Amino acid sequence: MTQANIALIGYKFMGKAHSNAYRQVRRFFPGKIEPVMKVICGRDRAGVEAAARLYGWEEAETDWRKVVERSDIDVVDVSTPGNLHHPMAMAAAAAGKHVICEKPLANSLADAKEMLKAVEKAGVKHMLMHNYRKIPAVGFARQLIEEGRVGRVYHYHGAYLQDWIMDPNFPLVWRLHKNLAGSGTLGDIGSHIIDLARYLNGEFTAVTGQLTTFIKERPIPGSGEGAWGAKGAKARRGKVTVDDEANFLARFKNSSNGVFEASRFCGGRRNFNVFEIYGDKGAIAFNLEHMNWLEFYDCTDRPGRQGFKKINVTEAVHPYGGAWWPPGHIIGYEHTFIHAIHDFLVALEKDVMPSPNFRDGVANQAVLDAVERSARSGSWEKMK
Amino acid sequence: MTQANIALIGYKFMGKAHSNAYRQVRRFFPGKIEPVMKVICGRDRAGVEAAARLYGWEEAETDWRKVVERSDIDVVDVSTPGNLHHPMAMAAAAAGKHVICEKPLANSLADAKEMLKAVEKAGVKHMLMHNYRKIPAVGFARQLIEEGRVGRVYHYHGAYLQDWIMDPNFPLVWRLHKNLAGSGTLGDIGSHIIDLARYLNGEFTAVTGQLTTFIKERPIPGSGEGAWGAKGAKARRGKVTVDDEANFLARFKNSSNGVFEASRFCGGRRNFNVFEIYGDKGAIAFNLEHMNWLEFYDCTDRPGRQGFKKINVTEAVHPYGGAWWPPGHIIGYEHTFIHAIHDFLVALEKDVMPSPNFRDGVANQAVLDAVERSARSGSWEKMK
Amino acid sequence: MTQANIALIGYKFMGKAHSNAYRQVRRFFPGKIEPVMKVICGRDRAGVEAAARLYGWEEAETDWRKVVERSDIDVVDVSTPGNLHHPMAMAAAAAGKHVICEKPLANSLADAKEMLKAVEKAGVKHMLMHNYRKIPAVGFARQLIEEGRVGRVYHYHGAYLQDWIMDPNFPLVWRLHKNLAGSGTLGDIGSHIIDLARYLNGEFTAVTGQLTTFIKERPIPGSGEGAWGAKGAKARRGKVTVDDEANFLARFKNSSNGVFEASRFCGGRRNFNVFEIYGDKGAIAFNLEHMNWLEFYDCTDRPGRQGFKKINVTEAVHPYGGAWWPPGHIIGYEHTFIHAIHDFLVALEKDVMPSPNFRDGVANQAVLDAVERSARSGSWEKMK
Amino acid sequence: MTQANIALIGYKFMGKAHSNAYRQVRRFFPGKIEPVMKVICGRDRAGVEAAARLYGWEEAETDWRKVVERSDIDVVDVSTPGNLHHPMAMAAAAAGKHVICEKPLANSLADAKEMLKAVEKAGVKHMLMHNYRKIPAVGFARQLIEEGRVGRVYHYHGAYLQDWIMDPNFPLVWRLHKNLAGSGTLGDIGSHIIDLARYLNGEFTAVTGQLTTFIKERPIPGSGEGAWGAKGAKARRGKVTVDDEANFLARFKNSSNGVFEASRFCGGRRNFNVFEIYGDKGAIAFNLEHMNWLEFYDCTDRPGRQGFKKINVTEAVHPYGGAWWPPGHIIGYEHTFIHAIHDFLVALEKDVMPSPNFRDGVANQAVLDAVERSARSGSWEKMK
Repeated sequence: MTQANIALIGYKFMGKAHSNAYRQVRRFFPGKIEPVMKVICGRDRAGVEAAARLYGWEEAETDWRKVVERSDIDVVDVSTPGNLHHPMAMAAAAAGKHVICEKPLANSLADAKEMLKAVEKAGVKHMLMHNYRKIPAVGFARQLIEEGRVGRVYHYHGAYLQDWIMDPNFPLVWRLHKNLAGSGTLGDIGSHIIDLARYLNGEFTAVTGQLTTFIKERPIPGSGEGAWGAKGAKARRGKVTVDDEANFLARFKNSSNGVFEASRFCGGRRNFNVFEIYGDKGAIAFNLEHMNWLEFYDCTDRPGRQGFKKINVTEAVHPYGGAWWPPGHIIGYEHTFIHAIHDFLVALEKDVMPSPNFRDGVANQAVLDAVERSARSGSWEKMK
Repeated sequence: MTQANIALIGYKFMGKAHSNAYRQVRRFFPGKIEPVMKVICGRDRAGVEAAARLYGWEEAETDWRKVVERSDIDVVDVSTPGNLHHPMAMAAAAAGKHVICEKPLANSLADAKEMLKAVEKAGVKHMLMHNYRKIPAVGFARQLIEEGRVGRVYHYHGAYLQDWIMDPNFPLVWRLHKNLAGSGTLGDIGSHIIDLARYLNGEFTAVTGQLTTFIKERPIPGSGEGAWGAKGAKARRGKVTVDDEANFLARFKNSSNGVFEASRFCGGRRNFNVFEIYGDKGAIAFNLEHMNWLEFYDCTDRPGRQGFKKINVTEAVHPYGGAWWPPGHIIGYEHTFIHAIHDFLVALEKDVMPSPNFRDGVANQAVLDAVERSARSGSWEKMK
Repeated sequence: MTQANIALIGYKFMGKAHSNAYRQVRRFFPGKIEPVMKVICGRDRAGVEAAARLYGWEEAETDWRKVVERSDIDVVDVSTPGNLHHPMAMAAAAAGKHVICEKPLANSLADAKEMLKAVEKAGVKHMLMHNYRKIPAVGFARQLIEEGRVGRVYHYHGAYLQDWIMDPNFPLVWRLHKNLAGSGTLGDIGSHIIDLARYLNGEFTAVTGQLTTFIKERPIPGSGEGAWGAKGAKARRGKVTVDDEANFLARFKNSSNGVFEASRFCGGRRNFNVFEIYGDKGAIAFNLEHMNWLEFYDCTDRPGRQGFKKINVTEAVHPYGGAWWPPGHIIGYEHTFIHAIHDFLVALEKDVMPSPNFRDGVANQAVLDAVERSARSGSWEKMK
Repeated sequence: MTQANIALIGYKFMGKAHSNAYRQVRRFFPGKIEPVMKVICGRDRAGVEAAARLYGWEEAETDWRKVVERSDIDVVDVSTPGNLHHPMAMAAAAAGKHVICEKPLANSLADAKEMLKAVEKAGVKHMLMHNYRKIPAVGFARQLIEEGRVGRVYHYHGAYLQDWIMDPNFPLVWRLHKNLAGSGTLGDIGSHIIDLARYLNGEFTAVTGQLTTFIKERPIPGSGEGAWGAKGAKARRGKVTVDDEANFLARFKNSSNGVFEASRFCGGRRNFNVFEIYGDKGAIAFNLEHMNWLEFYDCTDRPGRQGFKKINVTEAVHPYGGAWWPPGHIIGYEHTFIHAIHDFLVALEKDVMPSPNFRDGVANQAVLDAVERSARSGSWEKMK
């Protein structure tokens, strides 16, 4: 195989990001397998056809089952709302396709486990799109940890704070429906900081958390003249069935403690995904809003010479280094997806399993599940 | 009364800071009552006499009971390890003295309540030395909140991270003994971030937390040649009976959520006391390591013009403004104590109760107590 | 015309960046004119053919004169070393092609003026690739200035600091030859900060500057086993004929003062292009290494509420806003070129002159020329 | 001698800062010589008497000549407007007193030279109060440089930006009169950045600069109802005879280049005194508004591990370390004066010349003088 025919399901935010990744990956990363942007799929014909033209897909399709079953498709990329991940991934696996799936893997732990079982049974490659692992600074953080520069970890703090639904008249979009999204802030951005923590600090053993919905009802899109914004006040309102904020404490297998915050109600934090890791040898701090930088503190520096060093992670020696621009010339959000697709294609080429994959999805979902259980029980909950 | 005769018990770190405050306060803040540095008290005669000379106290004393009962003393300032707060404050109240006490108020909630009862019965002024309230930027944060610039609070994050006992050979000082210090990181610096949260966000209603001791045994001071550092390895070791780290989630009376981290094991964070408050109108961020600044985000700014504004809180219109140097000329750690003593003297002058006081101490202790209970129970605990 | 056939001359750093811009522009910015990546041109056949394949050009060519004269070419994009800008742009204009040219426009003011005369006589569109104008934060800065939020400008500081040739064994590449590059740091990155200053603060009236070459000789590439790095020491050395650093003071037409620094010898500054503008109403600060942010200080804020506000310039209302990702999801270096090409295509579509163009190139070159003259004369020099 | 009797002339801003230094120095720095706050002197009897009471001076005096001639005075501290430095220091030297003098040393280079001659002839100790040398982070920067961690310096940038006279109705205070202040921004804060550059980078050899007065006339204090602020518009106006802003380029004896900015018209910069030093081994960055920190970049760190390290300069091993509070507990503006007085007392004790002293004052004045000459000549000027 020298080509990999891709079918992408979903054409909005993630559809745009994934499309860009397929278009760009080979322009910056050489490789033996060329991804072919075969077909993009979505429910709205006009919408998906426009997307196909805009993003450069050969065909547009509205029936995802047809797409999954096409014999010329090698890879199915599931970039839809969460409730569709399970049926689509199951069908794709059944059809023997490699599967890429947006995060979180599923809307429940049970679904996630089934999906893992299915892809493993099918023997296909599977990848979970936790794109933030693919930030050079994050990969570099992992490298520092693997080198022992952080040492025994004592404390891990992860936060992902946003503010895009603070307006009470922001409409009741799919991400605010439990049956579509599985959970709210927890699954959407909480899953990201769980993934980063797992990547950098290993497995969770127990959590205790709180889930809060600050705005209980919101305008139903299309339910009145002017569905949101100032006019949203006039729209019919429906119940918000997911959490607006998820905070939790954690214990890790490596015996460190974790403190996590995820919220969509933190004004001024547009995309504030930060972590700090403190160990007996060093400490690391990262902020997605300045994603080309990593701060590193070396406990072994001599007294008086210690401090957080702000490293611009754009050098040739850094992860994905040299592919883009000279040192100091920064990259952005979209590049994380390009790196992920590059890694996926490398895995296909080398016939190894990409990372993160559905195993990570299940482990992540187990944490989400334990947080939800603890929010109900008011107690610490272990992973199931 | 135009003079207030002060007796200070304790002559080390806090003794130095309090002494400086008494010496300096009237040089920068005019007022009708002059504090007189009458007597400093400590157990070691040579030590306390040296301190008296160095800091400018008229007399040195080794028996605190004598000091408390002296008829010429108006104010007893308790700056000792936690286990002595209760007996000293009780005796001072009984002797009809005004009392200033270092934080946390006591080593247990029961003790704290008794102390409050005693000072209230005695009808004396009482103050709790939570000096960080007295930072201009913190007072300014409160002012913004009172003006409604933050609005309904959704999320509060407080962290106090230090790294001074990360070395496993750091000795078993009094702060690491439960019977002396009451608790470890929790009471020492956790109490600070609880106080700031209460000051800025109101009362806690429930918490769930975890307490961890990373280094279980440490060299006993004086137990071997070279009691700490590299040679500490040879010293006899004793058990650490307090927590090294305390993390907790909280719910507040105003229905907001809280996330708290306190640790002495976060490398590179020497004195990293930060908070962020997120409301529906605005957000605030503070960092003690840059204590002359406050960041404020105004949700009501027009789109595209929003962002955290970094305000240098050194203007004449700011709390304690104009007393020190021109705008932009920063102050430091010691000034917080001077402000506190200034506030205390103003309270004496106006015959009102200073703030924070033993009522705050009890409320703070109730949170410490609930965190400790939750760490044992694994569940959310309400304030007692 | 619904297509614009592009010929790109140059296939290395700038060739890569421009190619990416042509490939990406229509994926994110709708428009009536589709750029067609017709032919890429370079002297080395193998190199240019590989580039054509990698970046997606239909054809590769080694003779730039042929390319310029092809009747199917609408736009000639000159992305070569500076000494070739003049002949290529002159030939392109003579052939009636629209011309895009990398900065600085020419290697001398006289050449630049001839080029402007030629494109104006030919009546073609011409654009100068000062891509940093196309950063949303920079466009936003200009918008604030145009709105009067900065007011009468007193002081402008621009610096562009890099460190990529600090190693004395870094080889004598074309950018270090005066006959190829025109000048060194001055023309390469000094021209950028001059362009930003002209864009934001208007025309220069006089300058006085200093040009310095710190490392006088360097290894000639290919002149010995191991042409650079540690082994470079063994290579034959040639004379560096350009400046390593260029500093200058300026006066502007609006009566403000300017202070400028450009250096390739500032360790730790990989791509540190910063400016601060101070006026009687407000101040602005920008740093390319954090290019998604702009800091704005409003002098008209009430006392005590003043401070630099850090604005994340990724909102839909910002320049180029909404084309990319949701607010807070940052873009990078390459996007500046895409914005520039977008602006160029809009200009073609609307039949207006793009900006910046060769007029800006001449004005910029006049400043470079005056700095060089002042470095020789030791006195203030006016623009010619 | 075990006591040093101090006479301080001047009781306003600098009088307050110096008084505080004398009061505090021995509380934090042990030493054999105790400074005795003997007499404070000023023209206004009521004012100087209030200052004496407030700051703790034994006596108040209005005639500086009397003070200087008192046989019981050991040290005369000149903290007056610049025009009085020369007569006072000359008289003090003639009377055999040690002299401390505020910066800049004099209002002209000729005066400065005479003053140096006088103190040298008298054989007294002399100190120039360039207090910013005494910031721990600045001393630490010098230490790094002396250790060779910066190496051969290429580029030095110093800026001191303030905004306190931006209001055109800010009154015509003494600092805006050439006959009183010597020069404006140049001498007041330009002298500070010249001193820091001399301390860290050695002697200047040539400069070229520009001096600008933005607001040509201002309200004369006391000349109308409401002398400044909004009402200042009604006051009688007088001519501003000094510069509002001073920018200059420099060459240093060590062959590095310098770029300097000093302005009182940079909105939002209250006390923004920054420097960056770039050498072939490392780079250093400092900002007075965050004066407890120093950033250091080590060129010799391995590739990918390089970055500016933000060091909190509050450790026991740092300059003046251990005297104040535990690491991470910051100090402020006033501490610089205490350090300076400490250094002065150490010099008395050891019978060595304090630093900086009148020799530094003359060298500094020579740079100020050369900048003024270059501003007139429009050319580079050497030091006289």
